Amino acid sequence: MHRVRVRVVEDALDANNTIARANRDDFDRAGVTVVNLMSAPGAGKTTVLERALAGLEDVHAGVLEGDVQGSMDADRLASLHIPVTQLNTGNGFGGECHLDANMVRSALPSLPLEDIDLLVIENVGNLVCPAEFRVGEDVRVMVSSVTEGEDKPLKYPLMFRTAELVLVNKIDLLEHLDFDLEHFLHHLDAVNPGVPRMLMSARTGEGVEAFTAWLRQRVKIPA
Amino acid sequence: MHRVRVRVVEDALDANNTIARANRDDFDRAGVTVVNLMSAPGAGKTTVLERALAGLEDVHAGVLEGDVQGSMDADRLASLHIPVTQLNTGNGFGGECHLDANMVRSALPSLPLEDIDLLVIENVGNLVCPAEFRVGEDVRVMVSSVTEGEDKPLKYPLMFRTAELVLVNKIDLLEHLDFDLEHFLHHLDAVNPGVPRMLMSARTGEGVEAFTAWLRQRVKIPA
Repeated sequence: MHRVRVRVVEDALDANNTIARANRDDFDRAGVTVVNLMSAPGAGKTTVLERALAGLEDVHAGVLEGDVQGSMDADRLASLHIPVTQLNTGNGFGGECHLDANMVRSALPSLPLEDIDLLVIENVGNLVCPAEFRVGEDVRVMVSSVTEGEDKPLKYPLMFRTAELVLVNKIDLLEHLDFDLEHFLHHLDAVNPGVPRMLMSARTGEGVEAFTAWLRQRVKIPA
Repeated sequence: MHRVRVRVVEDALDANNTIARANRDDFDRAGVTVVNLMSAPGAGKTTVLERALAGLEDVHAGVLEGDVQGSMDADRLASLHIPVTQLNTGNGFGGECHLDANMVRSALPSLPLEDIDLLVIENVGNLVCPAEFRVGEDVRVMVSSVTEGEDKPLKYPLMFRTAELVLVNKIDLLEHLDFDLEHFLHHLDAVNPGVPRMLMSARTGEGVEAFTAWLRQRVKIPA
């Protein structure tokens, strides 16, 4: 007698995970470390990247830039003389509020994977849905600006919970804000206990070298 | 011979609009003016509301508070001694990144519509999807913080395009930022020419009285 095999129909998110694993396999084969960089709009992802990659000239880096519309950030990063690919999620209406694995897969042919060791995927600015969709990344990094308030880890818990590194940005503004850093870090530890965090100001450059060193370590290029 | 009537199957967004119109009808019957208040995470919606509603004691106001999780903002607003209803979009996973008409409809039984003249619906912090879903509002107001950068209207055009009033918040920080206000307003006019805008700092209170007066005018209560 044959054994009955039950196959559960995959839902949309399973489909996303299937494609994310395929992306990851392609990245692994090419020896590329992939960082999924996420934040709210205006938290400073692009400025952080500009600063961090400028100090990472010994690593062959590339960027996949996700935006609803336009290529302003990609244009900024292209001045670093690294390969930058723009991915727009706009579809004629409001556009998608996040990157998913299939969008990233559609961009693979335009990415010079054989020539780079590090790919940073700058996600659409949003603290909700980007956290729900793996895109094939090795690691998730999020940027949280101190201008956004101390309550954000409690209000957007999945994003803060799935981040493996939290960059606390715009600390040059701390003295001008009613922002209690201890309070914020307490909330962060409540949703993601002990997650590595780095305080920085991408605008002044303060603290960015720690992230540059972290990226270098991730791609396993000797410092 | 009978005339053939072609009926196009409604898509998901048409369903949303159908429910939004039903909400609007209910609000109109109760004589309630409804504001859909939107912004990126941490732009200051709740602080703007705290300040503006504190100056609007002659109007019977209520708030419907949308968040992925928690009731921190609702708790803050409840101290104004006005009716506040919390609507959470979290569903066990990452949660919904916006309010839609059906979520608002589900909250109607808990809203004291007969007792209020103004209902502010504070949407989930997000510059993409909230703009795609009408919830039955009379008017859309968005808050844009100067800490988010000058490029936001170009990167999230639907949100800025569908706003009928833009509150430019946190102007007390302008002197500490590399933010060119003229540049921002130029981008704003590029996507929504001439849209009314008010500069303010909800933290210091500067400029908030203009929004309070605008709200009073909207509910047609004599000043």
